[in-house]
Amino acid sequence: MEKKTPDNKRKTVLTTSRNSRKKRSTSYDVSRMAGVSQSAVSRCFKPGGSVSAKTRAKVEAAAKKLGYQPNAIARGLITRRSNIVAVIITELTNLNYPEVLSQLNKILGQKGIHILLFTFGSKENIDNVLDQVWQYQVDGIIAATQFTDKQIKACFERGTPLVFYNSVYADSSINSVCCDHEEGERQLVESLLKDKRKSFVVMSGPKESAVSTARTRGAINTLNEGDVSVLQLSGDYSYQSARELIREMFENKTFEPDAIVCANDTMAIGCIDALRHEYNMKVPEQVAVVGFDGVSQARWASYEVTTVVQPVEHMVEAAVNMLIERIENPESPAEKRLFAGKLIAGRSALLN
Amino acid sequence: MEKKTPDNKRKTVLTTSRNSRKKRSTSYDVSRMAGVSQSAVSRCFKPGGSVSAKTRAKVEAAAKKLGYQPNAIARGLITRRSNIVAVIITELTNLNYPEVLSQLNKILGQKGIHILLFTFGSKENIDNVLDQVWQYQVDGIIAATQFTDKQIKACFERGTPLVFYNSVYADSSINSVCCDHEEGERQLVESLLKDKRKSFVVMSGPKESAVSTARTRGAINTLNEGDVSVLQLSGDYSYQSARELIREMFENKTFEPDAIVCANDTMAIGCIDALRHEYNMKVPEQVAVVGFDGVSQARWASYEVTTVVQPVEHMVEAAVNMLIERIENPESPAEKRLFAGKLIAGRSALLN
Repeated sequence: MEKKTPDNKRKTVLTTSRNSRKKRSTSYDVSRMAGVSQSAVSRCFKPGGSVSAKTRAKVEAAAKKLGYQPNAIARGLITRRSNIVAVIITELTNLNYPEVLSQLNKILGQKGIHILLFTFGSKENIDNVLDQVWQYQVDGIIAATQFTDKQIKACFERGTPLVFYNSVYADSSINSVCCDHEEGERQLVESLLKDKRKSFVVMSGPKESAVSTARTRGAINTLNEGDVSVLQLSGDYSYQSARELIREMFENKTFEPDAIVCANDTMAIGCIDALRHEYNMKVPEQVAVVGFDGVSQARWASYEVTTVVQPVEHMVEAAVNMLIERIENPESPAEKRLFAGKLIAGRSALLN
Repeated sequence: MEKKTPDNKRKTVLTTSRNSRKKRSTSYDVSRMAGVSQSAVSRCFKPGGSVSAKTRAKVEAAAKKLGYQPNAIARGLITRRSNIVAVIITELTNLNYPEVLSQLNKILGQKGIHILLFTFGSKENIDNVLDQVWQYQVDGIIAATQFTDKQIKACFERGTPLVFYNSVYADSSINSVCCDHEEGERQLVESLLKDKRKSFVVMSGPKESAVSTARTRGAINTLNEGDVSVLQLSGDYSYQSARELIREMFENKTFEPDAIVCANDTMAIGCIDALRHEYNMKVPEQVAVVGFDGVSQARWASYEVTTVVQPVEHMVEAAVNMLIERIENPESPAEKRLFAGKLIAGRSALLN
């Protein structure tokens, strides 16, 4: 008799919901079938929960039979942990971001945490994104984009842990993981100076990008130490924008570079294609071209871009660990971690 | 006096939670401050909820002051809608997927729906992914990958709406949106036959990929109609695998192709680089190369791949609409939508 009750109960539930979605089994269904208390079921599914081997075996058998899965969202309302992290990232068409997102998914997934994804175009407002984030009980935010002070304050006021990926803020209370863009660019430019390059184009990415600004600053500061001429041009990180800048420069006959320092690999690839295919120039003999990021396309045989590779795996792991530390211990001190990139000599510049 | 109560109440709440996360304002806080019922607050934030202009103004003012946002997850437990959709997608390093994911995010976002992201490597098991999906009350699943019959059955049994992106199943009860890979490949191969190509390599993607299988079938069936020799090789969609297949073929001197039909653009790019940079061959004069997908890299001047472009925007919009239809009306009939790709003549093959 004791054994039949839960089964009957379950059948009734399934029948009444025939025309809508089927009802999930609850921890109470499992406790009835296993003949243990509901709190024992709950402990079985809680990481580190204490329960005897015998009870665990009973609960696991019943859970399997009923197709029971602990409801992470309902649990989140009680424990205040949803195991969901919001990832806010500018458009994925930037070749570096798909890899970052893949790594985030992999490393968060290993810790049982899932990504609620927010991507947005350059024209959209992060205020709107945050309005949506607040509607979900996310445990924290990883932002691979820039926030205004007001947006950062909104996160602080809500007590939502926040880690920036590749954005640094002067305020020491803000957590971030970043590649050392300025130092990486300095190394690239120093190699070009050693190679006796004299006429430099420095091609920036979008004006609003702090990453591009740091890279440009690294290039310009290093070039100012040498006896060279410099032309600064401003693009938007895209292949197309780089091609157009090269075209404008040659059509206006304003400048004849022997080295082009690009804000990312995609722009370096655009420059190489424009130089070779539109102006029949030899890269690197006539013009050396360097990029930044280390995306896989930069290694393709048509380009083999000399670049600085960001240590994406290490950076993502650091960002995830930093966020989890703040979720579990909100009083832990803020931290900024700066990772060195690695210079890789390709065939788009002859480095010594 | 009446006005002071809610403010005092709120202060108390904030003080008691000083050392943990700050408490979110609830609809009850808003109702107290606005001096209206909680159900009026609730109607204000429900799409299509009926409420007078005067009440709405009071509620919105109070909500703004309190920083109140409706809690989508708590609401989901009541309405059985979380406005979260699980997107299951194989690794983002496939160049076509970042664009698909960006579009999904854009179109779902316009409808107030967010993506809980699940990406996974080729070695991982979708059973594990689904175990995680069941822990969240997702409204539905968009799967840009393949499921076993058992995995599909698990979704049906739970009543979770499911739409496949670029996977088709014979079972007419399964919803899918797909590009017509077979027909697209037929068009590419017919053009090569008209161009008097005689020795074809057909280079497939991963064996387990239904998309690759459909493309290969389209190529082989069309080639069987012509008087040509065919060599079938099998790669994994990657640039590197295509280069290695070319290298093996030439080193074994088994076959001298004048046309290579690749399962995707990335492999076509790998072939072009191997032919030009390792074997000093002219593309397309000596060997024509065609791809599939229409990724942006295929348009780069070093390649200009002749390819079939998938109508990603239309396909994603169709998948989203199809899923929402099944969420709102579970009894609506299943549907398979097949979209034509568009042949784009690049410079990697001379098409007439």
